[in-house]
Amino acid sequence: MIHLPERVNICECWARDGLQGEDPFIPTEKKIAIINRMVEIGFKRIEATSFAHPKLIKQFADSLEVLKGIQRPKDVTFIAIIPNDKALDRLLEACDRGYGVQEITAIISASEDHLLANLERTFEEAMPPLADVVNRARQAGLRVIGCIGTAFGCPLAGEVPLEKIVELTDWYLDKGATSIMLGDTTGEANPRQAREVFGQMKERFPGVDFIAHFHDTRGMGLANTLAALQEGVVLHDSSFGGMGGQPATSRPKYHRGFSGNTCTEDMVVMMEEMGIETGLKIPEVIDTALLAEQICGRELHGHVTRSGPIRHRSVKALSLPDLRLDEEIPPALFLVGKTGQEVRSQNLPWQVIREALNKSRPVPEGLEFDLGGISVKEEVEARAILVTRFRILHVQKEQRQAILQVLSQKANGDVYLEGQVKLLFPQQ
Amino acid sequence: MIHLPERVNICECWARDGLQGEDPFIPTEKKIAIINRMVEIGFKRIEATSFAHPKLIKQFADSLEVLKGIQRPKDVTFIAIIPNDKALDRLLEACDRGYGVQEITAIISASEDHLLANLERTFEEAMPPLADVVNRARQAGLRVIGCIGTAFGCPLAGEVPLEKIVELTDWYLDKGATSIMLGDTTGEANPRQAREVFGQMKERFPGVDFIAHFHDTRGMGLANTLAALQEGVVLHDSSFGGMGGQPATSRPKYHRGFSGNTCTEDMVVMMEEMGIETGLKIPEVIDTALLAEQICGRELHGHVTRSGPIRHRSVKALSLPDLRLDEEIPPALFLVGKTGQEVRSQNLPWQVIREALNKSRPVPEGLEFDLGGISVKEEVEARAILVTRFRILHVQKEQRQAILQVLSQKANGDVYLEGQVKLLFPQQ
Repeated sequence: MIHLPERVNICECWARDGLQGEDPFIPTEKKIAIINRMVEIGFKRIEATSFAHPKLIKQFADSLEVLKGIQRPKDVTFIAIIPNDKALDRLLEACDRGYGVQEITAIISASEDHLLANLERTFEEAMPPLADVVNRARQAGLRVIGCIGTAFGCPLAGEVPLEKIVELTDWYLDKGATSIMLGDTTGEANPRQAREVFGQMKERFPGVDFIAHFHDTRGMGLANTLAALQEGVVLHDSSFGGMGGQPATSRPKYHRGFSGNTCTEDMVVMMEEMGIETGLKIPEVIDTALLAEQICGRELHGHVTRSGPIRHRSVKALSLPDLRLDEEIPPALFLVGKTGQEVRSQNLPWQVIREALNKSRPVPEGLEFDLGGISVKEEVEARAILVTRFRILHVQKEQRQAILQVLSQKANGDVYLEGQVKLLFPQQ
Repeated sequence: MIHLPERVNICECWARDGLQGEDPFIPTEKKIAIINRMVEIGFKRIEATSFAHPKLIKQFADSLEVLKGIQRPKDVTFIAIIPNDKALDRLLEACDRGYGVQEITAIISASEDHLLANLERTFEEAMPPLADVVNRARQAGLRVIGCIGTAFGCPLAGEVPLEKIVELTDWYLDKGATSIMLGDTTGEANPRQAREVFGQMKERFPGVDFIAHFHDTRGMGLANTLAALQEGVVLHDSSFGGMGGQPATSRPKYHRGFSGNTCTEDMVVMMEEMGIETGLKIPEVIDTALLAEQICGRELHGHVTRSGPIRHRSVKALSLPDLRLDEEIPPALFLVGKTGQEVRSQNLPWQVIREALNKSRPVPEGLEFDLGGISVKEEVEARAILVTRFRILHVQKEQRQAILQVLSQKANGDVYLEGQVKLLFPQQ
């Protein structure tokens, strides 16, 4: 009924678009740490940095150090923004020394007003040097994303005609660009428009790789992503915590400074929930999003970082290697003495813990429980609803055991069970 | 290419679903004020209150006072949640006295675990009294929404089979329900599922009015709304600021307490931007969302309340009746001396202000400018980009004039123009 791609390739943009509006300088080693983490958890496209002049965007003063410091598996494409000739010189030197990138992004706005506001250049002034950048990068063996900013509308100029996007796409392809990014720079796209624009562009340029780069300025990031998916777009940009937007300057230029890319962790959950392969594991993505929050020192805009994933669809069976210290296993509900059912209080604590745990995550065969640390705080009556919570206190992988803190409360809040239970996992 | 409804009917749920998780009691007069405002700005369906027992949800202890206090135009449908017989008794008494509602919502979960957790009842126990409620309400001439909660998955039980939704829909319709709400109570739906479920339900129950009630727990509220729109659903629920979720209890039951309905102001902007008529005006919806924030005393989850609407699509020409004191008109850009263009500095302030204002909002014919209050702070060179900002300082409707504060800065932040300009509107 719905035609959607089977798999997508998400480019994580936190280290560039995410950080370009961030004012306090993020230490280089933290940037390196999070990019390494992105690599480890399976991102295959990573926007690593920008070669914008450090005078303009201080955040990227360490772009070379970042590129030097990261691990570089062969199947991961690193991407950098190259705004001009001199930036390309610096990048090519880094490439020669073995710490360049494989792909660059060249940017032009579809709106001349926006181009002026951002680069202080007209089309006439901006295009020839940009053509040189694309050309030289291609000659140096780099892939080039031709990014068309404000492709869905401009806060200064208003509507952007499709013909302008077509013209710039033609121009980029002629200069050698290897893919075309349609950037919703200031979050003006809506899903109907996203479908129409991507639909028409894919029809007019068959075989060209289009990248969807939406911002969540008006909360439509995921809805627009859905629209692009429905048009068969498989290359998507996003940023942890929905960070991103215009470069940090002394004043916000548009939409009162409120912006942000589509949020990586929410996008991954949406796609995975829809059965679209991202090549990523939801818990690892959420963990990395939380690391991004920690680095920024504040709560970002992700939803699943707060709510957790939808556990019955994204959680694997309880397994020792996956248990993380201090992790809370989502609460589960257990009904004692359902209508007409008998309460066998002797085995009750065992039943409550086993079944509640099993509702949270499938329990592997052969798992043993040691309930020695549990105390019954209050008897349950013939019928009670128990909400049972678990937190992982201790994991000893070599001894195949984990200790869980257990709290089981009746619906009214009274505590039934409390204490610690030891899980002994079967030999692998 | 995309089939979408031409118009929709949004039910504003802030006063019920929005508030049920809100802990400090919102004063009755504020609830009345915001419901009256919803009516004034064009909502035709408003979930006004719940008749849940005040012991369970204190927020609704004033349900009758709220219903007594609100204005009631004939074309607006007010809705209340009726959880049981006694609640219905109270409502019917209010109806007799002239301050009832025209429609009630009856709720059952598609998951028995959720039903137990929320109502402490099994299906067997919950359904007969609910059937009585539906029946008696219908006999009293009320319309009844048959709400099926956790229709897209349950945080306790996991997947909910479509057959259960079909069975409950059949049951509701048999008892006399006039519409069916599929509630994504804890935000487990994804857009593929939303399309599949609504698509199949509409096929199996042709002619039945289905209501989409999504939560934004995982950030997919608008994407799921888009999916439901693509299946032709025209009845949508939402709440200002994305408020809503489980009733305020001492502890969060699911997804760590993080929840919330799909956000009204973001939903309206998405729909209107897509050309779907909501019958609402974006600036008025945003204003009311900001009133909801003011009442709650904190920033809520709306995006467009922060970013503003997309102005070139949703803003009408500058007109005296629409000007609001202290309003900021979005900044606009003006280029002095574009390549090859001459700078005529004598008329420059006039040009800058007129053209920048015109970019923000079309300026009506015959508008006169009095630039007496403007001073030139610094000369501009042959070529400069100016960002011009306006704030409305004073509006005198009877004298057809408004005073705007103007600040025009160069791209580097230096001030070019500063001061006040008087606008004299033409006689209507």
